Amino acid sequence: MATPTHLLKDELDIVIPTIRNLDFLEMWRPFLQPYHLIIVQDGDPTKTIKVPEGFDYELYNRNDINRMLGPRSNCISFKDSACRCFGYMVSKKKYIFTIDDDCFVAQDPSGKLVNALEQHIKNLLCPSTPFFFNTLYDPFRDGADFVRGYPFSLREGVPTAVSHGLWLNIPDYDAPTQLVKPLERNTRYVDAVLTIPKGTLFPMCGMNLAFDRDLIGPAMYFGLMGDGQPIGRYDDMWAGWCIKVICDHLGLGVKTGLPYIYHSKASNPFVNLRKEYKGIFWQEEIIPFFQAAVLPKDCTTVQACYIELSKQVKDKLGKVDPYFDKLADAMVTWIEAWDELNPAGAAAKLPNGKAK
Amino acid sequence: MATPTHLLKDELDIVIPTIRNLDFLEMWRPFLQPYHLIIVQDGDPTKTIKVPEGFDYELYNRNDINRMLGPRSNCISFKDSACRCFGYMVSKKKYIFTIDDDCFVAQDPSGKLVNALEQHIKNLLCPSTPFFFNTLYDPFRDGADFVRGYPFSLREGVPTAVSHGLWLNIPDYDAPTQLVKPLERNTRYVDAVLTIPKGTLFPMCGMNLAFDRDLIGPAMYFGLMGDGQPIGRYDDMWAGWCIKVICDHLGLGVKTGLPYIYHSKASNPFVNLRKEYKGIFWQEEIIPFFQAAVLPKDCTTVQACYIELSKQVKDKLGKVDPYFDKLADAMVTWIEAWDELNPAGAAAKLPNGKAK
Repeated sequence: MATPTHLLKDELDIVIPTIRNLDFLEMWRPFLQPYHLIIVQDGDPTKTIKVPEGFDYELYNRNDINRMLGPRSNCISFKDSACRCFGYMVSKKKYIFTIDDDCFVAQDPSGKLVNALEQHIKNLLCPSTPFFFNTLYDPFRDGADFVRGYPFSLREGVPTAVSHGLWLNIPDYDAPTQLVKPLERNTRYVDAVLTIPKGTLFPMCGMNLAFDRDLIGPAMYFGLMGDGQPIGRYDDMWAGWCIKVICDHLGLGVKTGLPYIYHSKASNPFVNLRKEYKGIFWQEEIIPFFQAAVLPKDCTTVQACYIELSKQVKDKLGKVDPYFDKLADAMVTWIEAWDELNPAGAAAKLPNGKAK
Repeated sequence: MATPTHLLKDELDIVIPTIRNLDFLEMWRPFLQPYHLIIVQDGDPTKTIKVPEGFDYELYNRNDINRMLGPRSNCISFKDSACRCFGYMVSKKKYIFTIDDDCFVAQDPSGKLVNALEQHIKNLLCPSTPFFFNTLYDPFRDGADFVRGYPFSLREGVPTAVSHGLWLNIPDYDAPTQLVKPLERNTRYVDAVLTIPKGTLFPMCGMNLAFDRDLIGPAMYFGLMGDGQPIGRYDDMWAGWCIKVICDHLGLGVKTGLPYIYHSKASNPFVNLRKEYKGIFWQEEIIPFFQAAVLPKDCTTVQACYIELSKQVKDKLGKVDPYFDKLADAMVTWIEAWDELNPAGAAAKLPNGKAK
């Protein structure tokens, strides 16, 4: 497939949550400058965030969020990078690429700089194959195909909703693993993209992530984390569980693998442990919940699926901790806010007009 | 993990189906000579197969198979590499590595020769993680681990029953793909091993395959192919569907990815099309059958699972073609023959003594 990047210049926004000057963009300039940035400023709204010259951007701080969403702004986290999902909501583009401000351009094994956004776009524009595993990985990549024994009826694939990229250098480990392996670095460049099979959940990291907002946007809610909440660092995980269940229900694909970014700096494992420790308990109940979650056939839009999921969260996870009652309510608030800011999208249909 | 190869010298047999002199072993000598070979000679039993000097082997031709199995020998295919499964049955070792005689030693991207057997052993000795996807692939490899959000209760993993290796150069394509892409070569070395998730089927190729005979051997039946049968080139696929359903039921793991071998020569696509064309139709019904197959909880041994599966094959696939009636009977015959040749194994138990 030829480089399709330029095609999506007017169809893609880059969402960056931050509390600091965006110097990291200098290294990304050759790849990202053509695109529009949505910067979600976390923390103190009076602080000024400097953006390198030449980038086209809009910036929202907490005051903007409060003003635009009113009482519904309580569904957007504060003092946690979960606030990034506000950027998904205010975007009007079809595609989103979101990246953390401590992520730099990676090199492939030949030393070439990796254009992460280009690879995400390739991933999103090629179908996914969630119903049967292809042992040569993504059959739509150059030089690959479906192998012997792959049913022909499944080779058309399904639309790809999410492209999950990976990280060289500092791996995305939880606090206990960080503490046990402080020196571990990811140096293995795995030259593969693959579809996460239907029915299989995965830990979605928000550091280097792209998605089709029209297909799955309303489910990309990063939950209640950080300030005033009992938990942090589960924002992207929560979104990952929700989007996977909904993609499986709606017949959409989720890919993982390439592209890599270079993750420069490990966050403090002691701080992380404090944020994570409830999540480490809770995920033992949350994951079986999502593995067992079934959505009714009449849920044919992402919004309908998400509202249904919020009910099941309240019903099943509310018993685990009152936090999940609050989170279930916030899921509904998020959809209300999404639909208010995206009135056309509220009635958006799937390409085939029905759920699978 | 340090190189574990030498540990398994007395616990592993290499099974090679062939109709010709085994000159290809010369290139494998540094890696395979320490091991015992079981050669299953296909076709004319009066022909002499030359084995390079220094290799320790036993060789079985059709006369041997007929003599040893008597009337049950009809479950072993003739004039098809499916006959290799006879070697699995006569082995007395814990592990099997099977390889085609047109497969040579691959090189990794640094030019180093790949010790395929060593990687298979690593794969088999490390647990699998079928219940949740790890985005950094096999968490048990050096330099990798479970990522943030991976439930701690699942990090012990489950025993690995099967290690499915891949192929550089000539990819394992079906006849239609071979015809359409005669020049396609696989040059992408993907440095990954991963567990095929529970509930997901995959196309298992028999070219470069290793497994734990104690854990899954009786399900590694390569079916009725070749001489006198309406189909060929689905022997390994059939085994792959069966072993995956049974591994999922028994809580065992299946890995795919590394190691690569170098596959030297494409088979004739016209001949392949003749062998495959019924399979191309049938797989559209076979795969949904296996995707829906449920084994009862009281099936706690591989043999019990396999006999149950044979009943379901007869019941559900018998309608597709009378061939499946015959195949279902052969599945039972295979288990009878297996248990006769492996009287101790007939009562083999899983490590945990129960099905999941």
